Amino acid sequence: MRSPAPFGKRYDLLVTYDVDTSTQAGRRRLRRVARICEGYGQRVQYSVFECRLTREQLEALQHRLVQELDETLDSLRVYVLKGGRDGALFTYGRDTYRDFDEPLIL
Amino acid sequence: MRSPAPFGKRYDLLVTYDVDTSTQAGRRRLRRVARICEGYGQRVQYSVFECRLTREQLEALQHRLVQELDETLDSLRVYVLKGGRDGALFTYGRDTYRDFDEPLIL
Repeated sequence: MRSPAPFGKRYDLLVTYDVDTSTQAGRRRLRRVARICEGYGQRVQYSVFECRLTREQLEALQHRLVQELDETLDSLRVYVLKGGRDGALFTYGRDTYRDFDEPLIL
Repeated sequence: MRSPAPFGKRYDLLVTYDVDTSTQAGRRRLRRVARICEGYGQRVQYSVFECRLTREQLEALQHRLVQELDETLDSLRVYVLKGGRDGALFTYGRDTYRDFDEPLIL
């Protein structure tokens, strides 16, 4: 992967999650998880973030998310992308993420 | 990408979508989009599918999804994955997708 050498290798990643929001605690987890991810990348869908991170940043992000998520109810997945952080092969529809607090957007 | 030569090159893809479910029409779109994606790959989160497709299959999938989605309200993104269809770099929590009709799972 291309990277600015002085800052170490960076990985183009996609972070996706499901959080069980059937309880108030779950809705709180969802808000916290989204806020954490907003500090590491670009929100492109409700629970999808594009990130360009060093290994250290990725480990910090994973650590913070694992602290918040409920292992039995929620799901977190991190993928390495081909074609760069903004290199989605195909996009359609709304291209900017809508307001985080808007309800019922799956 | 590795591929079984006789069937043409296959791409390891991640398909993610947001559908605005604030209306009944939106909830219907969401159900249809999910059903279409289920025919092309493995559902791993509520609106995330891992797929291994030829270019022709990808084009057919895109065409079908674009027919269903509302361009002004919904969002579709397709990414090429490094490391293969099942090659998520990191996963945590629930590893199997829960029932599609269960409400309020974001």
